[in-house]
Amino acid sequence: MRIKVINPNTTASMTRSIGAAAQAVASSGTEIVAVSPTMGPVSIEGHYDEAVAALGVIDEVRSGEQSGCDGYVIACFGDPGLAAAREAARGPVVGIAEAAMHFASFVATGFSVVTTLERTCVIARHLTVAYGMDKFCRGIHGTDLAVLDLEKPESDAYRVIVDACRQALAMDRSGAIVLGCAGMADLCRRIEKEIGAPVIDGVAAAVKQVEALVALGIGTSKLGDYAAPLPKDYVGLTAGFAPARSGGGR
Amino acid sequence: MRIKVINPNTTASMTRSIGAAAQAVASSGTEIVAVSPTMGPVSIEGHYDEAVAALGVIDEVRSGEQSGCDGYVIACFGDPGLAAAREAARGPVVGIAEAAMHFASFVATGFSVVTTLERTCVIARHLTVAYGMDKFCRGIHGTDLAVLDLEKPESDAYRVIVDACRQALAMDRSGAIVLGCAGMADLCRRIEKEIGAPVIDGVAAAVKQVEALVALGIGTSKLGDYAAPLPKDYVGLTAGFAPARSGGGR
Amino acid sequence: MRIKVINPNTTASMTRSIGAAAQAVASSGTEIVAVSPTMGPVSIEGHYDEAVAALGVIDEVRSGEQSGCDGYVIACFGDPGLAAAREAARGPVVGIAEAAMHFASFVATGFSVVTTLERTCVIARHLTVAYGMDKFCRGIHGTDLAVLDLEKPESDAYRVIVDACRQALAMDRSGAIVLGCAGMADLCRRIEKEIGAPVIDGVAAAVKQVEALVALGIGTSKLGDYAAPLPKDYVGLTAGFAPARSGGGR
Amino acid sequence: MRIKVINPNTTASMTRSIGAAAQAVASSGTEIVAVSPTMGPVSIEGHYDEAVAALGVIDEVRSGEQSGCDGYVIACFGDPGLAAAREAARGPVVGIAEAAMHFASFVATGFSVVTTLERTCVIARHLTVAYGMDKFCRGIHGTDLAVLDLEKPESDAYRVIVDACRQALAMDRSGAIVLGCAGMADLCRRIEKEIGAPVIDGVAAAVKQVEALVALGIGTSKLGDYAAPLPKDYVGLTAGFAPARSGGGR
Amino acid sequence: MRIKVINPNTTASMTRSIGAAAQAVASSGTEIVAVSPTMGPVSIEGHYDEAVAALGVIDEVRSGEQSGCDGYVIACFGDPGLAAAREAARGPVVGIAEAAMHFASFVATGFSVVTTLERTCVIARHLTVAYGMDKFCRGIHGTDLAVLDLEKPESDAYRVIVDACRQALAMDRSGAIVLGCAGMADLCRRIEKEIGAPVIDGVAAAVKQVEALVALGIGTSKLGDYAAPLPKDYVGLTAGFAPARSGGGR
Amino acid sequence: MRIKVINPNTTASMTRSIGAAAQAVASSGTEIVAVSPTMGPVSIEGHYDEAVAALGVIDEVRSGEQSGCDGYVIACFGDPGLAAAREAARGPVVGIAEAAMHFASFVATGFSVVTTLERTCVIARHLTVAYGMDKFCRGIHGTDLAVLDLEKPESDAYRVIVDACRQALAMDRSGAIVLGCAGMADLCRRIEKEIGAPVIDGVAAAVKQVEALVALGIGTSKLGDYAAPLPKDYVGLTAGFAPARSGGGR
Repeated sequence: MRIKVINPNTTASMTRSIGAAAQAVASSGTEIVAVSPTMGPVSIEGHYDEAVAALGVIDEVRSGEQSGCDGYVIACFGDPGLAAAREAARGPVVGIAEAAMHFASFVATGFSVVTTLERTCVIARHLTVAYGMDKFCRGIHGTDLAVLDLEKPESDAYRVIVDACRQALAMDRSGAIVLGCAGMADLCRRIEKEIGAPVIDGVAAAVKQVEALVALGIGTSKLGDYAAPLPKDYVGLTAGFAPARSGGGR
Repeated sequence: MRIKVINPNTTASMTRSIGAAAQAVASSGTEIVAVSPTMGPVSIEGHYDEAVAALGVIDEVRSGEQSGCDGYVIACFGDPGLAAAREAARGPVVGIAEAAMHFASFVATGFSVVTTLERTCVIARHLTVAYGMDKFCRGIHGTDLAVLDLEKPESDAYRVIVDACRQALAMDRSGAIVLGCAGMADLCRRIEKEIGAPVIDGVAAAVKQVEALVALGIGTSKLGDYAAPLPKDYVGLTAGFAPARSGGGR
Repeated sequence: MRIKVINPNTTASMTRSIGAAAQAVASSGTEIVAVSPTMGPVSIEGHYDEAVAALGVIDEVRSGEQSGCDGYVIACFGDPGLAAAREAARGPVVGIAEAAMHFASFVATGFSVVTTLERTCVIARHLTVAYGMDKFCRGIHGTDLAVLDLEKPESDAYRVIVDACRQALAMDRSGAIVLGCAGMADLCRRIEKEIGAPVIDGVAAAVKQVEALVALGIGTSKLGDYAAPLPKDYVGLTAGFAPARSGGGR
Repeated sequence: MRIKVINPNTTASMTRSIGAAAQAVASSGTEIVAVSPTMGPVSIEGHYDEAVAALGVIDEVRSGEQSGCDGYVIACFGDPGLAAAREAARGPVVGIAEAAMHFASFVATGFSVVTTLERTCVIARHLTVAYGMDKFCRGIHGTDLAVLDLEKPESDAYRVIVDACRQALAMDRSGAIVLGCAGMADLCRRIEKEIGAPVIDGVAAAVKQVEALVALGIGTSKLGDYAAPLPKDYVGLTAGFAPARSGGGR
Repeated sequence: MRIKVINPNTTASMTRSIGAAAQAVASSGTEIVAVSPTMGPVSIEGHYDEAVAALGVIDEVRSGEQSGCDGYVIACFGDPGLAAAREAARGPVVGIAEAAMHFASFVATGFSVVTTLERTCVIARHLTVAYGMDKFCRGIHGTDLAVLDLEKPESDAYRVIVDACRQALAMDRSGAIVLGCAGMADLCRRIEKEIGAPVIDGVAAAVKQVEALVALGIGTSKLGDYAAPLPKDYVGLTAGFAPARSGGGR
Repeated sequence: MRIKVINPNTTASMTRSIGAAAQAVASSGTEIVAVSPTMGPVSIEGHYDEAVAALGVIDEVRSGEQSGCDGYVIACFGDPGLAAAREAARGPVVGIAEAAMHFASFVATGFSVVTTLERTCVIARHLTVAYGMDKFCRGIHGTDLAVLDLEKPESDAYRVIVDACRQALAMDRSGAIVLGCAGMADLCRRIEKEIGAPVIDGVAAAVKQVEALVALGIGTSKLGDYAAPLPKDYVGLTAGFAPARSGGGR
């Protein structure tokens, strides 16, 4: 099967890192296609960035439908464009926040989220509610690392994150950590060993969830509000996004 | 004061109708600027349409910030782009679903929403939860009128909607109706007389809410997650949306 | 239009202060009638005070209906007698806690309440739930200022409140402040400047909400449980409160 | 021990009937004092009636504190004045809606409420939320019997109620019935036999709960918001309700 | 009436202590039968212990049904086997956590739980949700006393618990304490005097609740999901638990 | 990897059917060990059956830990013994209700459950709450097929279930079906084709979820309340279940 892993921001180095994390956990029969959209912000750190990034996510899902992708991962912890992407896709679409939180609820009665900027904590909190995971999420902790700092060796990001994880477990009396940024994927196993509790990276979790859904033949429901977008005209800059007369694609 | 009323879809006749409804309730000192974005879908009937329409909404808020608008109304019942628009604006931004639901909760212990397509009911339901209005909303009723049909005299839309309102009040045991589409604004007083219960149109409600907030000097909080978008690069089709180095505008 | 602003306690100096705050924000065509009931406690600092004060609120609504008031504000942060007042009134009735919280939810994803006595915090908390605002309210902070101390220059109330606001924003990670006492109305703009976040006073907010509802012709629903009280006999001390044979008044 | 059973309305025949129901279930050492207040409505069928009736309830609690009552039952399904009464009392105060719902949650995973007027259903629904019983309450059913009709043999009230109970069990898939009016107390065992499921009368339930609390020496907490009302002046018609300098009584 | 008080763990000294606490509050006509099951863990400190202990609880209810018990108390703060026991019993079955929390909600607007091991706090938290008591429970505090330590004079358990109660009241701003372990029953009045707020022991509370329900003739509903277990074969170690062809017993 | 699929009831033919369904979706490297416990009910249709069945589930997890199983599926829609099993296991343990509901929330904004006996609907409803899936579950529909009837060709079970699925989609306005019984596993694809919406079988879903978790190295958290049971003595019939001195096994 072919799974498209969409990094909603447009920073290629982060896309490579996400792609590597996805590839590392993919089953032998799975082809991972990791992409950045051709449009949108270089990092996503607020509602505004998210709204614009959603367009890029949709664009990649539409082209994925044409090139035969079986499922999609949205690899940004705010899961931008998720509902719209589901209308556009026939196969499953899973966000990394969603995937990580659901997995955490399987292995602990409560988890903590450790993420980047303080200001994105509210976005994460809204997601816990949207996914029904608020009763499992006992705390969301910003580290005030900027997303792109995670790639800089001099930022000492790793140590900051491990410390935040330890504090989160103690303060929230939780049993597992959800890492709240796609850029943290490769730190996952190292942190787990240090803190002695499951650490869940959304990229890996989402790849496995999509693999599972595709393997079971479960696609996005086309009954009700995830049905393909109704065909109609779009104008101006976004004219190219107009839904086609048939199917969920172009 | 100057209030920009943004019809997120790109159908000019509907924008004129919304603008008229807004003007009809505006105070004497209020200038209403009713616009459609230069981009986006001709009607909004699902998550996908909404995600693309959000871009147009943001664009209008950004230009509004430059031309000195004091506040904004998002005149589509799904309130697309609301959180992003709030980051981009200094003054208040109010969605019509939000405004109508809050007003309904002031005059009845429970209200019903009567809207257009069945498939948009889920969007309305999610909004009731997002706004804390789910405990007041006792039912959401689709009429399966298409948005643009409301403008066609031959569609008999008025009669369909009145009947749906009556049934909603009886079935939900509710005390007020929220009309779930900007295109229904001018039908409001007529329906109220027929059914004997308050009927609340979001366009009118939102204009008055924004007027009130502006009059009180209450703008969108720039502390926390509605702070202006962080300046950064955007690429490709949406490059022009990159937040500027200072302020909430371009 | 004529709006009656009811200070549910019987301290005339506070009524004057509330009246001035209401007048300061009223539109040019609005007549503000600020009153204290002829009966009830000099301050309201618990459930018991509230229950007795509700009688005075009702009394003022009944006389307001006779003298042609178009809407009512209940100017005590516990919103005493709100549901009963709505049954008695044809026009809208808005409580100051309700009005302030709703406005706060339009300009921040979370707000904090700063109020007077610690023991009234539970009342405020119950209101957040009743109004669906609990998901926006991130904390309620008592300052242990007595209500009537707010009027005493020597109480240093202003400084205590500003400090409490600052702490509330930091501790709750919230974006706006709701001032939890009618007596704080005139402090509002000063505090906002000091703390750099919207500060919302319920008296001003409620006056504008009632103005808006009256302007739109939206009264209290007379369908369902806000219908006029059923006519019947009342005995003893409260015999005069018996609902009349017709209408919501005497 | 002495338990005061307060019928918040002022219809003496109903008070006698409630008193008899209370006496019938009281333990041998319990003295039941069934009273109507000297003030207030002859029946309680809305928010307005409730607000006025609360004054009478408080008055009876205050005189009860002076005459040595150990606990109180508020015998109207809306539990009017409950929080205020708790501030005024040292011993426990239990409402009949509260008592019945809690007992129902011990013997069934879901219950239905069968009550009088349709318009009081919203009051009952708010109580289920206030008491945390909304997850057990699967439906609230008005019979549109007026409260005082229950006393009239020609009203055929019994048959109407039994039919409503049967329908409620079937429609709500619930396992028990809560009777939503103090006037239904003596019908309880008869209905239970007919419908084959527990039928819970609030008067009986509340008497036993108060007996139990008094027997265990558990009074109303005087720490926090049920502490005795702060002493202060009251004016006008309600001057006599001013809290005394010490204790929770006069 | 005969009430069986089941200590789900198999430590006889604790059963004696629980029995004494139950006897101390029982009415004159009540016979208390305090038992430990013949099977199961010596203490219950986690989900696993609970699951095994449930079998012993059921066993005692089944034998109780044969020997004519009128009601049951499950005397472990996790209320193990409660739903199953209700299917097996005709009379009422009340857990001590359930009983204590409900009583606490009658005398305070919020309570704190003080319990033994930190790891059992999650179990208590799940119970608050299951019983609808989460809106009253403001905190759950582990003392990291092991259950069996409560019986050892040298453990200084009393002082640790009193300190935890005081801190809980202050930190949670609550008005009452629920003691979260059957082994704390005899400490109840002493603590209450020291801390000045109601302290509620579940054993005493549950005995009185069951007495009340039995006195009112209210048994467990046999309509719906508490109906007697369907007769069927069980095999192996638990073959003896197979429901009999008729009734809820053997 | 080796996954133990535990059918909590003791009907061997159903275990074989479940095993086949599990095997059909397992990855090539996965060994499925499908078992019934050596103890417990032949079918599970209520709280009582569940409580006894939990013992058998635990027993199988304990033996699985000794024989090197990497993860566990609990293949009964009530997920009996889930929390206890997680304490006893090092690897992941997933219930089929849990797995199916989580997957459904990935492909539809709302799902319906179609299950066997009406009386088990409450159990399913409690699970939706426990898993945070209540906001996605729009209805639970009993067919009043007995569990073991699903195996009988003459029961026409298939047609009854398909009809129930169709009605559920229409009545609940949902987009996917969760099949609420392990015995329905092999009907899954056939129904999906008939009704045109995703149909999710819990056995398949849980096998894939466990595979994914094991592949990612995510086990049950041993921090907090899923930590291994504390070693202690157990007596009587269940003496053999006493937790060993080290590890989560015997």
